[in-house]
This record gives sequence, C-alpha cells and structure tokens, in this order.
Amino acid sequence: MSNGGGVMSSTTHLLDFLEEPIPGVGTYDDFHTIDWVREKCKDRERHRKINAKKKESAWEFTKSLYDAWSGWLVVTLTGLASGALAGLIDIAADWLNDIKEGVCLNAMWFNHEQCCWGSNETTFAERDKCPQWKSWAGLILGQEEGPGSYIMNYFMYIYWALSFAFLAVLLVKVFAPYACGSGIPEIKTILSGFIIRGYLGKWTLLIKTVTLVLAVASGLSLGKEGPLVHVACCCGNIFSYLFPKYSKNEAKKREVLSAASAAGVSVAFGAPIGGVLFSLEEVSYYFPLKTLWRSFFAALVAAFVLRSINPFGNSRLVLFYVEYHTPWRKSTRFGKYPILEVIFVAAITAVVAFPNPYTRQNTSELIKELFTDCGPLESSQLCQYRSQMNGSKAFVDASPNKPAGPGVYAAIWQLCLALIFKIIMTIFTFGLKVPAGLFIPSMAIGAIAGRIVGIAVEQLAYYHHDWLVFREWCEVGTDCITPGLYAMVGAAACLGGVTRMTVSLVVIVFELTGGLEYIVPLMAAVMTSKWVGDAFGREGIYESHIRLNGYPFLDAKEEFTHTTLAREVMRPRRSDPPLAVLTQDDLTVEELQGIINETSYNGFPVIVSKESQRLVGFALRRDITIAIENARRKQEGILLTSRVYFTQHAPTLPADSPRPLKLRSILDMSPFTVTDHTPMEIVVDIFRKLGLRQCLVTHNGRLLGIITKKDILRHMAQMANQDPDNIMFN
Amino acid sequence: MSNGGGVMSSTTHLLDFLEEPIPGVGTYDDFHTIDWVREKCKDRERHRKINAKKKESAWEFTKSLYDAWSGWLVVTLTGLASGALAGLIDIAADWLNDIKEGVCLNAMWFNHEQCCWGSNETTFAERDKCPQWKSWAGLILGQEEGPGSYIMNYFMYIYWALSFAFLAVLLVKVFAPYACGSGIPEIKTILSGFIIRGYLGKWTLLIKTVTLVLAVASGLSLGKEGPLVHVACCCGNIFSYLFPKYSKNEAKKREVLSAASAAGVSVAFGAPIGGVLFSLEEVSYYFPLKTLWRSFFAALVAAFVLRSINPFGNSRLVLFYVEYHTPWRKSTRFGKYPILEVIFVAAITAVVAFPNPYTRQNTSELIKELFTDCGPLESSQLCQYRSQMNGSKAFVDASPNKPAGPGVYAAIWQLCLALIFKIIMTIFTFGLKVPAGLFIPSMAIGAIAGRIVGIAVEQLAYYHHDWLVFREWCEVGTDCITPGLYAMVGAAACLGGVTRMTVSLVVIVFELTGGLEYIVPLMAAVMTSKWVGDAFGREGIYESHIRLNGYPFLDAKEEFTHTTLAREVMRPRRSDPPLAVLTQDDLTVEELQGIINETSYNGFPVIVSKESQRLVGFALRRDITIAIENARRKQEGILLTSRVYFTQHAPTLPADSPRPLKLRSILDMSPFTVTDHTPMEIVVDIFRKLGLRQCLVTHNGRLLGIITKKDILRHMAQMANQDPDNIMFN
Repeated sequence: MSNGGGVMSSTTHLLDFLEEPIPGVGTYDDFHTIDWVREKCKDRERHRKINAKKKESAWEFTKSLYDAWSGWLVVTLTGLASGALAGLIDIAADWLNDIKEGVCLNAMWFNHEQCCWGSNETTFAERDKCPQWKSWAGLILGQEEGPGSYIMNYFMYIYWALSFAFLAVLLVKVFAPYACGSGIPEIKTILSGFIIRGYLGKWTLLIKTVTLVLAVASGLSLGKEGPLVHVACCCGNIFSYLFPKYSKNEAKKREVLSAASAAGVSVAFGAPIGGVLFSLEEVSYYFPLKTLWRSFFAALVAAFVLRSINPFGNSRLVLFYVEYHTPWRKSTRFGKYPILEVIFVAAITAVVAFPNPYTRQNTSELIKELFTDCGPLESSQLCQYRSQMNGSKAFVDASPNKPAGPGVYAAIWQLCLALIFKIIMTIFTFGLKVPAGLFIPSMAIGAIAGRIVGIAVEQLAYYHHDWLVFREWCEVGTDCITPGLYAMVGAAACLGGVTRMTVSLVVIVFELTGGLEYIVPLMAAVMTSKWVGDAFGREGIYESHIRLNGYPFLDAKEEFTHTTLAREVMRPRRSDPPLAVLTQDDLTVEELQGIINETSYNGFPVIVSKESQRLVGFALRRDITIAIENARRKQEGILLTSRVYFTQHAPTLPADSPRPLKLRSILDMSPFTVTDHTPMEIVVDIFRKLGLRQCLVTHNGRLLGIITKKDILRHMAQMANQDPDNIMFN
Repeated sequence: MSNGGGVMSSTTHLLDFLEEPIPGVGTYDDFHTIDWVREKCKDRERHRKINAKKKESAWEFTKSLYDAWSGWLVVTLTGLASGALAGLIDIAADWLNDIKEGVCLNAMWFNHEQCCWGSNETTFAERDKCPQWKSWAGLILGQEEGPGSYIMNYFMYIYWALSFAFLAVLLVKVFAPYACGSGIPEIKTILSGFIIRGYLGKWTLLIKTVTLVLAVASGLSLGKEGPLVHVACCCGNIFSYLFPKYSKNEAKKREVLSAASAAGVSVAFGAPIGGVLFSLEEVSYYFPLKTLWRSFFAALVAAFVLRSINPFGNSRLVLFYVEYHTPWRKSTRFGKYPILEVIFVAAITAVVAFPNPYTRQNTSELIKELFTDCGPLESSQLCQYRSQMNGSKAFVDASPNKPAGPGVYAAIWQLCLALIFKIIMTIFTFGLKVPAGLFIPSMAIGAIAGRIVGIAVEQLAYYHHDWLVFREWCEVGTDCITPGLYAMVGAAACLGGVTRMTVSLVVIVFELTGGLEYIVPLMAAVMTSKWVGDAFGREGIYESHIRLNGYPFLDAKEEFTHTTLAREVMRPRRSDPPLAVLTQDDLTVEELQGIINETSYNGFPVIVSKESQRLVGFALRRDITIAIENARRKQEGILLTSRVYFTQHAPTLPADSPRPLKLRSILDMSPFTVTDHTPMEIVVDIFRKLGLRQCLVTHNGRLLGIITKKDILRHMAQMANQDPDNIMFN
C-alpha cells in the first residue's frame, strides 16, 4: 500500500523507488476536503502494483483476485446488512408503536396484527379486534369501552409517546450526537469529499438504529426513510474497513457509500431502481458507471434480503413505509435544551394526535388508505357514499361516482384538521435532535390535500356533470374521478416540491404503488411542483440545510453566471502580503518551519526562484510537517540548518554544511494551474468536475496566486449577496 | 450573438468592446471536434448580454423571456414531432407488413386487424379471419386453401419483401446515405462533440422515416427502435434551428439532442423513464441535471402524443414494438454492392421465414406470444398441454404445471429452428445499408431461448418433482414454473449482453411489460449477462462500432490504467521538428501565413518570446485564417509586411512600417495546461470531464509541447495493442 505522495507517486516511483514512503503522508485531517485527483491516482498506483505482482506466486494471484472482487463483495455485504437492519427496524418499530395502545396477552412480542392472526374469534370485518389483544384500559381498568377507558388509553398513549421520545433524545445526546436528523445533507457533503470522522461509525450506527425505532414509535411527525439511508451508509463505511482498497482511499470509500445510499433507499421504499436514481440524482457527487452497476447490485441485494425477512408478512416490499427527514442545526432558543424540546413537541403531538383517527394512525397506513380507491370491500369512512343502486352489490363494484354520504363529510373535516396539524408539527419536528425523516410526513401532507381536492372534484362532477370540463368524459353513472389518484399525485407533488427530485421521485412512487400506468400524471405533477418551487428559490431542502450548516459543498446544480476572472478571486488580494511560496533548493529546515508556523495555509507552491517565479510544484503543509519530523527522528545529520531541496539532485553546498533534506517525494509535480485571465465560470467547472482542493494561478508562465475551494465558495456567496463567512470548514 | 473568440470573450468584452466580432470565428469544420469549454463560455456570455439588456425595453424583455423558455419550447416541439412520427411509422409499417399477405377489399388503407374489426361474421376465436380480408391467393386464384394458393401466397410474400427491401436500399443509396443503420453509434459520437454535417438533417429525416417503414415491412430481421432514436434526434436538430440559443452553439445543441434521444426511446418502447435512463447511461456525454429534466419532459410529451395517436387502438403504449440496430460500415466484399446485398439477404429471409409460423409472424408479436403465460383463453400452440383435470375448465384457470401435449413439442422444434434462423439472419442484417435496429431481434432471440428453457424446466419439474431443486416449492398440481417469465428474463439478458446496458434496460423492460414484480430476476439476469459479456470483452455493440468506424470517441466507461506521463504522449516527440509556435509581437502577416501554410495543425500556442518560452495563449488555425482575410479585406493598410501582435498594446515599430494587425480578440488567453510530469490517467480524465480538444504541456513554467484528443486516442490504441492509425478523424 503506497502512501507516498499521491499525484506524483507514479513519477517518484520511477525516480526514488529506493525511498521508503513516509507513514501518514497522504492522509487527511478531520473537517478537511479530500483531493479527488490524488486519491484516484493513489488507487491506480495500488492497482498496478497488485497487477505487477500477481504472476509472482499463487498467493499473490489469490490476493489480486480478492482485490478485484472486493468491490462486489463490499456492496454485497452492505446490501445484506442494510436489508437485515431495515427489516429489524420495521418489525421493532411496528411492535413498539402498538405498545402505545395495548399489549398482546399471549405473546408480548406480537404486535396488534400478529396477535389477532391466531385468533379464531376474529371476523374479516373486525380483523383488528380480538380478545388476546388488550388495550391499556382493558388491562388496567378491566373495561374496553366507555369514557373512563378512553381517558385511560389517551393517558397511556401520551405516557408511552413521551417515554420513547425521552429515551431517544437521551441516547442521541449522550452516546452519538451524529445520530440525530436524517443525515442526508451530511452524507451529500461527505460524498462531495468532506471528512467528518465518526459520522458513519459503529456507535452512530448502533444508536441511530435504536433511537430510530423509538422516535418512530413515539408518534412524532417524522419518517424513518431518510435515517435508513444514513444507517445503510454506516454499514457501507464499516464494511469498507475490511478491504484495504476502500479503507485506505477516501475516493474509493465514497464509491461504496454511493452504493450504500442506493441500498438505503431501496429498503426504505422497497424501490431498488428508485434507490439507484436517488443516489445518482440527489446524493452522489462522483458517480462513474462502475458505481452505477455496484449501486444497482447493492440495491438488489438489500431489497431481496428485506423481502426474505418479510417484515409485514405480505410478501411484498414495504409499500408505504415511506419517510425521510432533514436536520436543522441552527439553534433556536429552545435548541439549547434538546431534551426538553423533544418532550415538548412529543407531548403536543401525542395530545393532539390521539382524538383524530387520521392523525392517530400510523402515517404510512394513512397514506395507504388515502391512495386506495373505494371498492365494495372497503370499510373506510372515506368510502361511505350514498349508494344509488338500491344497495345492489353488483353495481358497487363498477364504482361509478356517487354523492358523498355523512361519513365522507366527517372524513373531510377530520382530514382538513389533520392537514393543518401535520403541516405545523412536521415543521417543528424536523429540528429535533432525534433521528427523523421528512419523506413520509411530506407525502402524507400531499396525500391529504390531494384526497380532499379529489373528493371535491368528484362531487362537483357528480352534481354538475353538464359543466364544460366534465361534459366530455363524465357521464352520469360512470367513474370519471378517482380521488385515490389525486392523493397519489398530491403526495408526489408535495415531496417533489420539498426535495426537488424529479426522475428518481417518479420512479420511487411508481415502484411504491405499482402504478406504472400513472407515469404521465405523476411526471406532470412532479415537473409542475419543481417549477413552482423553483420560482420561490432554487434550493431543495437538503441544499438549504447544507448551506445553513455551512458545509463546504460545491453544488453541481447551481450555475455560476458571473463574469469575474480568476485574478479577482485568487489570493493574495492587492492589499494582502505576498503569497507564501517555497523555493526549490535554497531554504533551510529552520526557514521552512518558520514559514509553516507563521502561516495557516494548507499548502505552499514551490517555485524555481523568487526572481523567475516559475512554478515547480505544490507541497501540502501536513506532508511537510510529517516529513520533517520523520527525517529528524530517523535520518542522522538533519539539523535546523540543513538545506531543504525539492529538486532531483542535491544543490551544491559548502563543504561544512550539514546533510541536506530531500523532500521531492512529497512534492506534487503536477499541480493544476489556470491563467489569471480564466473566467471564474471555467474555474468553478474545473473544481466541480475534477474535485480539486486548490488551483494555482499563473500569468505568462509566472506564478501569481492560488484559489482554494473555500475561496470559490466565499466568492459565490458574495456574488449571491450572502454572508461569505458562513462557509465554516476548510 | 457573440462570435468573438470563445473562452476569452468575457475578457475581450471588457478590453476590446469596440471591436466588431469577426464573422466565422468560433465555428467548426465538418468532421472536427468541438471545444466544450469554449462553447459553454460563449453561451454564458450570450446569456449575460440578454440579461443586461432586458431592462432596456419591453421588446428586449420579451426577447429575454423567449430565450429563457426556448429550452423547454424546443424539447416540447421535439417531443411532439417524435411522438407523431413514431405513430405514423407504426401505422404505416403495420399496414405495409400486412400487404405482403393480402389486402383489405373494403378499404385498401386498413391493415388486417382493422379490416376485420368491422366484420360481423368474425368470432372471437377466429378474429383473424373475415371475408373482407383477401389473401393474394384468394384475390388472384380465387381460392384461400390448398397447395396452389399456399405457393401463390409464398410467392407474393417474397415478391413484396424483395420490392420493399429494394426500394428502401435504393432510396438510402441515392438520397441520404446517412439514413442507413440505427444511427446510435454516430449519435453517441456526435453527442461527445464530433461534427458530422447532414447526419441529423431534414433529408436524412425524410428518407429514414420512409425507408424505415419499408425495411420493417420487408420482413428483414431488424427492428425500428434504434432508427427511431435517430429520427427523434433529427427532429431535435431541425427544431434547434428555430432558436439562436441552440443553433449557434454546438454544446447547447447537444443538450437538445440528449433530450431528443430520450424522446426517441420513449416512443420506441413506450418507456419514458427508460428513455431518460438510456440517454443518460448509454448515449450522452455531457448530461447536466438541467438536461435530465428536459429529457424527462421531452420523453413525457412524446409518450403522450403517441398515446393520443394510439396506433394500435389499445390505449396502451406500444408494448413490444421493440427494436434497435447498429450499422457496420467496414465493407465486406459484398458491401460494395449494397443493393444486391440487401436483395440477397431479404430473399433468404423471406424464403426461409415464410414456412415457420414463428419466423413469419411479426417479431414483436412473437415476443408478446412468448412472454404470455398460458391461460384458459390462450389458443397458442405453445399452450397445448394435456389437461389432467378431465377438461374441467375451472381448474385450468389456476394453471398448474401440466405435461406437454403434441402442440408444445411441435412448437419447441419450430422455436429451435426459429432461434437458429434468427441468430444467423440478424448477424447478417446488421450490416445492410437500410435503417435497421437490433433491439427487437436480440430480444426475440433471448425470448425464444428463454421460453425453450422454461418449458424444459417445467417438464422436468412435472416429471421429477421429487428432485431436490424442485421439492421445496414444486408440489404436484401447483404452478411453480412460468415459462413466460423465462422468456422475459431471457430477452432482457440477451439484450443486456449485446448492448451492456443495465439500469436503463431493466427500466425499459418493466415499462414495456408492466412487470414491476419481476425486477429482482430481471436485475439478476442483466447483471449476470453483463458479467459474462465482460469476460469476453468490455465493449458493447455501440462502442465496437464506434471503434470499427474510427470515430474520435473518448469513452467514459473505459479506464486508463497505464503509467505513462504527459511528456511521453505530447508532441513534438524527440525526433520531431520543434513545436510550431507564434511569438506574441514580432511576426509579420507573411511569416504568420507561412507558418500556417507549412503546417497542418489546428492551432498554435502563442508565447512571449522564443527565449523565455513562457506561454501567453492559444490561437486556432481557422480563426487566424479568417481574421487575416477579414482584415485584409476590410482594414486599410494591412500588408504582408504588417506586424501581427497578440498583446494588449501595439509594439513600438519603426516609423515607416505599415499598420500593425491586432489579433488579441482571437487569442484564447486561458488555455489548459498540464505539467510534463502529469500522469496520463489525469490528462485523460481532464479531457473526458471537461471535453477539451487540446492541452498544452509545460515544465517549470516553460512551454514544452501539446497533447490533442487524437494524440490521446492514438496513445490509448497503442497501449491496447491496437492499430493507432485506426482513429480517422480529428
């Protein structure tokens, strides 16, 4: 495994192959940005070494085979683990959610539905009721009906909701602060090349899994799908440590994480293709075709495992167990007391949610009910239409539009209240310090609105079928309006407006619903909602949170349209001190250390001489420090007065001078350069597409200055009239 | 509209805004590669100009609105035209195909199916037979049955097939040679930045549309889906001429073409999402998210139009009207006589295809039949199982596995013969000079093989249900093997092996079949077939044809893994004459023309002086020629002895010297440079990601040489032990 010097390693490999690589050179500090080009070169170098060795022995050949297949192996393991964890979380959350309402007497570990499966006394119409399942009122007061038991159940519901919420926020706060939120903005930032140590670690994984179950069960207005993406990425990160190819290369590791995020969405929505597209459209930064195939495979394995676990016992993937979310790190005044905040929101949610059936029930079940059309077997309140056919069952099956009955009117009122409640609670729930997703709540809001509109249009069409808009395809007694479809389109449109996803969202929704025929209305709804959303501001919720958190994320979607030139953005500015540069062969160790100590730059250009200003290469601060320390510890005769040289051959020195220190192996001899006249739009493009950290600016062959990723982000913020100091990390 | 100088136009805009742009500067010759960076800069410049002007008057504001919406407008028009043309082609091909067998007496313009719709004498079981539809034997000999009429029909079938094939190849040869083949390899090359004038023109569109109908109707083993992508791209190209934003910018035009190819696949397979993914995974080179949304929209519009035209009268999209193809330009001995070649292949196809029902019928109908499972209403020979249930109709519906009847055995033999025939004929048909696609033939081959395997496994399971593999899920009387699913998986796998598509293929197949539940087996089959294919060679059929044709296509899928450095690839080589460079202020017009005439390079680096070799910029040959011509025609006092200067201010000249010529406006002041130590893997990456034409090589700030796209392609061919002279264009 070569750590020796990144970009120029293939060069130094030829020139200095007797030199040992210096340990630590080529790694990164926390909260720093990786150099994609260097990482990819390191990987190709490693690949070539293995290929060259593989004919030496059977053992080396086996190792090369293992290396070649480790990519598929790691995504397989990630897919397996993601599928298994998703199944576990589904089952646990389902069980814990039912605990709020009651308990199964025969077997504590059964949820409500499973508890009543074994019962003989259950009829199809009342399949939710069976003697084995006791509500808390039934268990404590001994009676299932009446105002006393209602209050008892209400109380126990609030009690459990608060307990779960309290436990979740406590665990997050004490053990793994990174486990809160959905993690998608952070994963986007990490995939773009930023380093956040521990964000995808085993503690985060463990705590996130446990608290996710608790948070979902507490009844807060949040979803578990976004966090599942984080969970899958943790699995990907942990498994990548088994393979040196991935553990020692930050760029390769990000390929695994891209595939893991596809697996995460695949299990979250039961949508393997949607997962791949989500990873491509929304999350990933660098997505070569190889990663597309790996993601595809990871998504496939994960979906297959989840289907085998079959958490809902219906041999389908988890239709409508759907949600996301996004964190909000900017603290409100309340934000200083995260536990209190969570308890407060959970209490309000529980108190308000219980009396309204549409807010009490599981959000995914609500969405399912809203999407479902009224058939003869549908017992939902939403389907209590007044039948015109004298009760003839045969005609209900054809389900023509009918006038709404009292059940539908009651349902509409409850849905309106639920809509307002969901909107308000979802806004506040996003900022809590518990794992939380925004997908299901957004879909629920959209579905409620869509269903209300659908019923309204249906009734309009029934009573006014002579109106121009209805006349053509709405004859009396035919089924021309499907309120369920309105709900589905509404859900997709609402989610599209929040996240600004397009193709991946449509695919997810139709994988979710199996509604392949509704592609056209779904596509139209998603496009419209994107246009309307873009009129208010181009950022989706994930981009907004990345900006709010000040992560150094160079968005590929935003276009840079200003006419500034590289020389206006580069440092040093006119009033600044001159650029800190190193000359290639006339500095001493002491002078070099002096330059490093006086400045805080991450790297220094190396030039031929102060007079000519001709650029030789670029050396990183971290590498110089490590190399000097290493040399003074291991090489004899290196003193503070030793000459440092970056050239191929040592400079001619006076006879009494101490042994010089050769630093060519840490010199990047192919730094990226642009001329001072290069428009910033091109520079931004180069940074985005090649994943650079810095770029040197020259004029007629002379070094003028440097542009870093942070300079670009600051400049973009300035041009957009935002506070440039908002970009916090480097 | 600024033509003035590409990359540095924003600079020159500030410095030389009084200078008129020189007409012709910034355009390209035929068979040349575009400079993506320059084109994108040109577009941003244009955009800024419009934005700056838009507050001046209501007219300018309207123009800016028109400009902002022209992107959506052009993809809408392209979608509309592609959908309409696809519908037209479907209807015409269907009608012409039936002409081979007979004619509708009531109305010549009805095809067989439509002809019998109006008939009262048709029963459901014999819905293909009605008195209005006369076979040729019936029309000419007056009798429908018997050996005489069979031979008559056989003869007429061959006659019509040959006529259609002859007419098609004649039209292609005489009017539009570019209309042959599927066009997908060429479209890939064009999208990567190559210019082939006329390839997407109106003549190609017209002739391709007509000959596609003829070629499909002639019964050759080809499909019409690949050519439909070409047809859609022609529409996109033609409509882009309505909008200066697209007509005058080659990079922007390629965004429209990406969207058009999505629309093409969308109408070819009735798969809008699949179309977008096909454009992304297989065809496009530069695919920003904006193009993703536009493609999505174009695909949507096209699918919607096609559905409205409803060519098959079944209110679904064109399920199983599926095919592609690919051309083969390397000439065989036969290839010199394209017409003879086509007639020969068409004759063999017609003679062999007629007697076997599986090869006589329309390939898409064959695929549909193979995919379909045996239900009680299925009258196909493939479903003649021996019933065990004493003919009880009620049980057939549950369709347990049954022993095969004589019909099935006969069908298997015919399928085996059809398989061999299809494989052989498809291989030869690909090289013909008619519009031809490979999608349907590949799918048919895969579907036949899959169905045969499916039936074999089914019979094995029936007779050996105690075998270990069947024991678990194959009890007697249950339906555990679905031969139709085997056919579907086989079709996907075969197509995947030919084209090496993955995600887009799976999406297309399930949009085509509606088989959302079969994602997992489909994904597994496609991945396996890709792996097996990759073991034989990594190229899909389109890449192979691009290589065979010698197009300058830098594939993003292939990885460059060699350790060569930029200095080993750059020109001049050690034995070459020195690099042709221009100095910034001491050449005369005559000297400059001399340099241009003596060399054939496309561009020249401009340096400060021969001694310092410090790089100032890069000037294109074409631009220099145009600028000199323009100056000598329009500016007075420009003589052969005039000094040419690229600097900001004119050099100090002797008093009697003629007026100097300023060429700064055509100088690219931000040429891309790399150092001589840069590994070629990075250089290849830069060329791919930024779409460069050339890149200059420096060492310690001095100009050393140049690397062009062609140098890179030659180098890659050399490293892969291929003939580097195979790369034909520049």
